[in-house]
Amino acid sequence: MTAGLDPVKLMKQEVGRAAASQVQSGTIVGLGTGSTTAFAIQFLGERLKSGDLKDIKGVPTSFQASVLAKQYGIPLTTLDEIETIHIAIDGADEVDPNKNLIKGGGAAHTREKIVDSLAEQFIVVVDSSKLVDRLGTTFPLPLEVLPLAISPVMKAVEQLGGQPELRMAIKKDGPVITDQGNMILDVKFEAIDNPAELEKILNNIPGVLDNGLFVGVADQILVGEVKDGQATVREF
Amino acid sequence: MTAGLDPVKLMKQEVGRAAASQVQSGTIVGLGTGSTTAFAIQFLGERLKSGDLKDIKGVPTSFQASVLAKQYGIPLTTLDEIETIHIAIDGADEVDPNKNLIKGGGAAHTREKIVDSLAEQFIVVVDSSKLVDRLGTTFPLPLEVLPLAISPVMKAVEQLGGQPELRMAIKKDGPVITDQGNMILDVKFEAIDNPAELEKILNNIPGVLDNGLFVGVADQILVGEVKDGQATVREF
Repeated sequence: MTAGLDPVKLMKQEVGRAAASQVQSGTIVGLGTGSTTAFAIQFLGERLKSGDLKDIKGVPTSFQASVLAKQYGIPLTTLDEIETIHIAIDGADEVDPNKNLIKGGGAAHTREKIVDSLAEQFIVVVDSSKLVDRLGTTFPLPLEVLPLAISPVMKAVEQLGGQPELRMAIKKDGPVITDQGNMILDVKFEAIDNPAELEKILNNIPGVLDNGLFVGVADQILVGEVKDGQATVREF
Repeated sequence: MTAGLDPVKLMKQEVGRAAASQVQSGTIVGLGTGSTTAFAIQFLGERLKSGDLKDIKGVPTSFQASVLAKQYGIPLTTLDEIETIHIAIDGADEVDPNKNLIKGGGAAHTREKIVDSLAEQFIVVVDSSKLVDRLGTTFPLPLEVLPLAISPVMKAVEQLGGQPELRMAIKKDGPVITDQGNMILDVKFEAIDNPAELEKILNNIPGVLDNGLFVGVADQILVGEVKDGQATVREF
């Protein structure tokens, strides 16, 4: 291991690079949110700068993605101006063996689901700690909720057997506010046996914008690992 | 018919009065949106002023309801401060024989559903033109949608067989913007055979906050009619 190189950072870079290398010229690219995806955006910018990649447009999933895209010189477009998204790259907080996900650790899952679910190919970039046998094991499920509905949504979630917690901010007093001006409930479920069904039930609670369950959306999972100080990337 | 009295206005007043007369002292009251509900709010205020009614608190479903409540002296509270809503009064754009509703003509259905669905007793105030054999017959179904997702949601709705139209504003250029800062798609379906199922499917489309289908929420329908110039109110 070379001195000064953080193996975890190196691994995230390698996963981001592997995802970015799959993007082809002339395509519309969904740009995800999070630390690993940030490296993918950086490598897309480097490929554009070197001339290896031409004529792509990005659709950001968050303010963060938008800022990074501008920083690395990736032209942006909106969902109103395009017919399809060819490829999307985004992170996840949990991935199960069926490629179903929990997202929302970055409070961006509503917009991420809008973009990622439109992509013809959705590549998920994670490290191996995100792989679980069953969703909800290590990470609570985030719900984006209209601020005025926080109390009734908490009660509705408790009736479904969940333990909701209002996500509190750091560097800001009180709760986290999303890019859309709403709040996040992190809900711990004893077991998520049927993610597809739970996704619909939660989205039907009045006041819930969207929840972090991504069922049948991901096409490819790129998993980064550090072995003997070496960063490796595998796919499943 | 007395000269100067508009029979339709008179009828809306009578329906509003009939609903307001059911409210008891010491209760929490959901305050709906729309022209008939506005009369109910007015009569609640008059009952408070006369001393016939005491110690109620209102939960508004919109900016309009909030303004009217203040105008007529009804103290307001929020969903965070209460345990239950005892009674809610609200209008509807269509009512079917099973008391299922289409709401959203006033672009307030998301917040209305949060409040109305919490009420122990939800009274719907309408005129007889709102009664239909099957939902969607006369009124398109409103969806509240995040502005950035309008285009993909339109495509998703078309794939379900609906014809979506972005609701355009009057006295403002461009689309209607809701009290929550979003847009409205009015969707014409050929037939809404299973409202409960359609409600869930639409709410699961990324970018949709809520749709105007209210299934199994209403307890009592008060219907106003004008017969021979006389306003009457019946219940079903």
